[in-house]
Amino acid sequence: MPIALLTDFGTRDYYVGAMKGVILSIDPAAAIVDITHEIEPQNIASAAFVLRACYRDFPDGTVFLCVVDPGVGSVRRAIIVKTDRYFFVGPDNGLFSFVQSEAAGIHAIENERYFRQPVSSTFHGRDVFAPVAAHLSKGAEPREFGRRIDDPTVLPEIEARHIDENMIEGHVIHIDRFGNLVTNIPASLADRFSKLEIADTSIITLHESYLQADSDTPFAIVGSAGFIEISINRGSAANVLRCTNGSKFTLYLD
Amino acid sequence: MPIALLTDFGTRDYYVGAMKGVILSIDPAAAIVDITHEIEPQNIASAAFVLRACYRDFPDGTVFLCVVDPGVGSVRRAIIVKTDRYFFVGPDNGLFSFVQSEAAGIHAIENERYFRQPVSSTFHGRDVFAPVAAHLSKGAEPREFGRRIDDPTVLPEIEARHIDENMIEGHVIHIDRFGNLVTNIPASLADRFSKLEIADTSIITLHESYLQADSDTPFAIVGSAGFIEISINRGSAANVLRCTNGSKFTLYLD
Amino acid sequence: MPIALLTDFGTRDYYVGAMKGVILSIDPAAAIVDITHEIEPQNIASAAFVLRACYRDFPDGTVFLCVVDPGVGSVRRAIIVKTDRYFFVGPDNGLFSFVQSEAAGIHAIENERYFRQPVSSTFHGRDVFAPVAAHLSKGAEPREFGRRIDDPTVLPEIEARHIDENMIEGHVIHIDRFGNLVTNIPASLADRFSKLEIADTSIITLHESYLQADSDTPFAIVGSAGFIEISINRGSAANVLRCTNGSKFTLYLD
Repeated sequence: MPIALLTDFGTRDYYVGAMKGVILSIDPAAAIVDITHEIEPQNIASAAFVLRACYRDFPDGTVFLCVVDPGVGSVRRAIIVKTDRYFFVGPDNGLFSFVQSEAAGIHAIENERYFRQPVSSTFHGRDVFAPVAAHLSKGAEPREFGRRIDDPTVLPEIEARHIDENMIEGHVIHIDRFGNLVTNIPASLADRFSKLEIADTSIITLHESYLQADSDTPFAIVGSAGFIEISINRGSAANVLRCTNGSKFTLYLD
Repeated sequence: MPIALLTDFGTRDYYVGAMKGVILSIDPAAAIVDITHEIEPQNIASAAFVLRACYRDFPDGTVFLCVVDPGVGSVRRAIIVKTDRYFFVGPDNGLFSFVQSEAAGIHAIENERYFRQPVSSTFHGRDVFAPVAAHLSKGAEPREFGRRIDDPTVLPEIEARHIDENMIEGHVIHIDRFGNLVTNIPASLADRFSKLEIADTSIITLHESYLQADSDTPFAIVGSAGFIEISINRGSAANVLRCTNGSKFTLYLD
Repeated sequence: MPIALLTDFGTRDYYVGAMKGVILSIDPAAAIVDITHEIEPQNIASAAFVLRACYRDFPDGTVFLCVVDPGVGSVRRAIIVKTDRYFFVGPDNGLFSFVQSEAAGIHAIENERYFRQPVSSTFHGRDVFAPVAAHLSKGAEPREFGRRIDDPTVLPEIEARHIDENMIEGHVIHIDRFGNLVTNIPASLADRFSKLEIADTSIITLHESYLQADSDTPFAIVGSAGFIEISINRGSAANVLRCTNGSKFTLYLD
């Protein structure tokens, strides 16, 4: 089955190579797929978003091996989230905030029999998560790795905060390569869009396509990941508005 | 069969992951190969060059899934170019300028039965091109996707322009990682090379190998892609000459 | 079998795509794995380190195709290093310094029958190394490619230099994405760590985990690759200490 990798390891080091080697040593038939290794270092919310935006496109049985792990070496748990269609393997730090709601079961990873030995204090991607993902891909059941848990970590900033019926405080959850700002406002609210205020700028238009926009004015659009995004046609909204991951804004609804 | 990906999506977002997921959901046996996702955003000519420089090295039957698509959401067509050996899938914007000349048939992509539904206005790589590529890989025929066309878009800047018999106006079509400037002058003209003037610099030497050059002087060389390139030994010609994609030059022939 | 790629080609050009195409044309069943293509251009020592840090995690029979090749086009040899478990293919310039010690045999690559023709003077990764790796993956024996040799190039800077019994002059062999400085001091010396002086800074603590450190003070730690590293918790040691690849330091032992 496919094993899809999502990390903040970058691609200039041996980290990704070591994980792939470990996987292939356990499951030579695994189809390893890189989602990305360029998550902003230690940005759990951005990783949670990227995963949320693409996991449903993968075939049933895919194992998602996700490592953005500022707490490596601490007592944070390692977990497997099983849904009807998929397995997710990684640290219990909110990385799976978007998928936990549909979990059919969540298990702690505790059974050291499956680990690469010795387990280092700095690289659980190789020593814990990669071997567990490969064993899941080969058919092991989540319960073989540890006890069931029911209190996974959820990122507080994943949800936008309603100030009142027509006013929401949201924030930028991801900035893509083209400088588009992905917000944590779900597409279902697009019909009620009235105005969005961010960085001293009022955005009053929600376009259906990039081509409806002239080139200088920031606009809102429903992005392909199912969230409202802020864009500038053929320009970088992040640069023009000087926004970063986590930038806050206020959304007014009709 | 291999499905080879060439895009300007970068690797920090979910775009590439989503396309791979869609492909594997349709054709679990597809061998997905990344050519590059680092094409300069929306630089169609650079993408056309990179494709031209490597496609012939792939095995027969390879499907090339190419997405550099500044016109996504507009009425630009989507096409399949079929040659004796390969299939090319992507927007009809000149991306296939170099391969269309050997086409055995070009078809528009119109049959929505093959698309991921709903089709977004911003991400045809996932919703249109990836599923079509996967169905081609599984054996579908180009004619199943739409009517045959005979007027594909060709990039005007692909061809160098002869001023007279011994003088050509060319331009930089791609800059590689090492700062080498790839020109649109085919290697077949190397025998007649006399002088190349670019950015107030006269280049009078065409070397056969990097090692013939001392380290400070720009020189011409026949690159591995079949075009004349401008290089500096162990340095970046792009930085030294301050050239960018599209920089113009004059070539004098013997 | 897996063919694992390690180069300094970057991922924005056609270089990696061409190598993959050549491999799949010869061995359609090859499982191509990217270790990295982001080695600092022409930094052989860094490539040797990255390879050393992950090759043992791969399954038996893996072919490592490694190209960091400042001497391409010169008379430097091309070699295959065979160990009990693996094959390594690349230029004979020290890239395999860490693995040659366990070689069961080293062969020059001389038999042009296996090359992609014509062989360019600038891209042996595609024309020589990729086809040789693919033929090895399909079962060819190293001796079919050329005569046995016993004098491979070794990088002098791989080994730390003992000044006396308790004092070692070492240097930075790799800087990872997070700014951690990997030294050429093996983990086996960690027990005797007393002090490390680098860039006018004295490092007096060797931690067992990142979490033992407060966030402002550089510290030493045994890295997951088996070498002592210099780190700052949630910061870049490279930036704070202004160190680069090759930076020298003095290590004092108990």
